[in-house]
Amino acid sequence: MNKGRILLSVTGFNPQRWHELLSAERDVVLAPDGPEDPSITYAVVWKQPANILARLPNLRAVFSIGAGVDHLFNDPGLPDAPIVRVVAENLSQHMTEYVVWRVLDHHRQGTLYRNQQQKKIWHEPPQRSAADVSVGIMGLGQLGRVAANALLAIGFRVNGWGRTGRTMEGVQTFGGEAGLVPFLNATDILVVLLPLTPATRGIIDYKLLRELRRRNGIGGAVLINAGRGLLQKDADIARALEDGLLKEASLDVFELEPLPKTSPLWTHPKVFVTPHAAATSDPAHLVAPMLAQMDAFERGEPLRNVVDRQMQY
Amino acid sequence: MNKGRILLSVTGFNPQRWHELLSAERDVVLAPDGPEDPSITYAVVWKQPANILARLPNLRAVFSIGAGVDHLFNDPGLPDAPIVRVVAENLSQHMTEYVVWRVLDHHRQGTLYRNQQQKKIWHEPPQRSAADVSVGIMGLGQLGRVAANALLAIGFRVNGWGRTGRTMEGVQTFGGEAGLVPFLNATDILVVLLPLTPATRGIIDYKLLRELRRRNGIGGAVLINAGRGLLQKDADIARALEDGLLKEASLDVFELEPLPKTSPLWTHPKVFVTPHAAATSDPAHLVAPMLAQMDAFERGEPLRNVVDRQMQY
Repeated sequence: MNKGRILLSVTGFNPQRWHELLSAERDVVLAPDGPEDPSITYAVVWKQPANILARLPNLRAVFSIGAGVDHLFNDPGLPDAPIVRVVAENLSQHMTEYVVWRVLDHHRQGTLYRNQQQKKIWHEPPQRSAADVSVGIMGLGQLGRVAANALLAIGFRVNGWGRTGRTMEGVQTFGGEAGLVPFLNATDILVVLLPLTPATRGIIDYKLLRELRRRNGIGGAVLINAGRGLLQKDADIARALEDGLLKEASLDVFELEPLPKTSPLWTHPKVFVTPHAAATSDPAHLVAPMLAQMDAFERGEPLRNVVDRQMQY
Repeated sequence: MNKGRILLSVTGFNPQRWHELLSAERDVVLAPDGPEDPSITYAVVWKQPANILARLPNLRAVFSIGAGVDHLFNDPGLPDAPIVRVVAENLSQHMTEYVVWRVLDHHRQGTLYRNQQQKKIWHEPPQRSAADVSVGIMGLGQLGRVAANALLAIGFRVNGWGRTGRTMEGVQTFGGEAGLVPFLNATDILVVLLPLTPATRGIIDYKLLRELRRRNGIGGAVLINAGRGLLQKDADIARALEDGLLKEASLDVFELEPLPKTSPLWTHPKVFVTPHAAATSDPAHLVAPMLAQMDAFERGEPLRNVVDRQMQY
C-alpha cells in the first residue's frame, strides 16, 4: 500500500511543531485539495472544522491530539473511520504531576500559608496526615490509575469511581450509578478525570457536590477538575463554595474556554485557575508513537486505543 | 526495676498533649524536685533549659521530640545518658508531603499561574516534564530516602548527597566533600534535609548556591530547606535570588525563628515561607513508640536510634 498523505487539522493552538515532526516521515497537508481529496489516508486533528473529514474518501483512521475525543463528535460530518485516542506515558505523567500538586496544595493549606505570609504571620494551624484523607478519583482510565498510584505512594487513601466499577489494588472502588453517592460520601478531595460523553456531561453539579464528605474542624471538601469543562456546571461550583459545601477548588477546565473575564471563578479567593494546562499534548513525545501506529496498521496490525463510538470514549 | 518518673521539658510550644499521653502510662513531671532529683529516669525534651538534665543522677536516656537533636547540644550540662532521636513513619510521611508539594509547586510554576490568575490571563507557558528535572536531596537519612522514593514515583530524576555516600536504588548518589560540587552541578531543585551538626552549620551559602545547575529558558535553580535554619545563611539566599542564581525558594526554617518581621524573606515575591511546619511531631503517633522503647530498655533490650555524640546526629 502506498503511504497516503496526512491531514493535520487543528484549531485553538499553533500546530507548527506537529507539522514539523509529522512531515519528517510523511507528506502532511493542512487542508484537503478540493471538495474530495483521495490522497489523504490519515487525519491528525484537534477541534477540526465541521465536515472537513467528510471530504476524504480514502480516510483510514482519525488520530485525536489530546486525551479527550469529545471535540470530534461535535462534527456532523464525522466519517466512519476508526478514531484513535492518544494514550501516552508522557500525558499521564503530566496529569499525575498536576493532580498530586493540586491535592497537596489543598491538603497542606497552601492558600492559608500564602495569606499568612502576606501578613508576616508565624503560625502553624492543625494539619491532618495524608493517611487520614481520602482522595476520590472519578474516572479510572489510564490517567486516573497512574494518578491513583502516585497518591498512594505519598500516603493518601484513594477511592475510585468508574462506570463499570473495575477494581484496582490499594484503591477502594465504586461502580456505576448506584456506587456514586457512597463514593462521594467517603471522599474528602474529589479529582475529576472523566471523559466527556453524553452520560457525563454536567455531572459535576450542586447536587453531586453536596454529597462530598465534610468533616468538622480542619478539612472540608475540595474539588479538582482536570477532565473536561463541560463535565461541570461553573455556576454550581461557585454556589457550592459560597454555601460552604466546598472548601476550595482547583479548576483546569471550564464550560467556556478561555474562561471569560466576567466569570466570578477568576477572582474567587478559594479557586485556583489554570488555562487547560494540566496535561498538554507534547508532540515531541506523541508524534513518534502516532507514526508507528500508522506503519503498523499498514502492515496489517490492529489499531490500539480505538474509541467506542457508542460510549464516545 | 521500678519505673521511674519522666521529666517532660519543652520550650517553644505547649506540651499538654504530650503530658496527657505520657501520663497515661507513667508518672510525668515538668521540672525536677529540687537541685537533685533521683526519681527521674527518662527525659522527654525539646529545647530544654540549660543544665536541667544535669540535676538527674539516675537519668537513663534522653528522648528528643522532633527529628533534630541539635537543640540538645546547646546545653552545657548535657549528661552522658544516651540520646534517642525520633524516627517515626508519621514524621517522614509529613516531611514527604511537604517536599513533594514544594517541588511540584516550583516545577509546575505555581507562582506564575497565581500571578496570571490575579490578572485574568489565560496563557500556558512552556512546561518541562518531571522526567527532565533533577531533584537533589541533601541528606539521605530516613526522611531523605522516603521523600526520594515519592519523587521517583511521580517521575522526577533524583540525586542524593550524603556524608558517607551511601547508595540508594533509582537515585544517583554522591558522597562527601568531593562529591558536593558534582552533585550540585547536576541538580535543578535542591532539597535540604540535613541534620544540623558542626560540619553542616551554614553549609547553604552563596558559594554553594552558585554551583546549582541553571538551564536556559524555563527552569532555573530552586532551593527548598526543610531541615534546620542554621544550615542556611538567610542573607545569602536573598542575594542568590537577586542575582538570578536562584529562581525561587521554599523555606520552612530560618536562622532565627520565628522569622523576624524585618526579614526581607517574608515579602520576597520568589520566596514561600512556612513557620517550621513541614513535619510536626504529632504526639498521637509518637508517644506510644517512645513508651515502648522505655519498656524494652527496662527489659534489657538496646535503645534504637541513639545519637552519635561525635557526629551529633
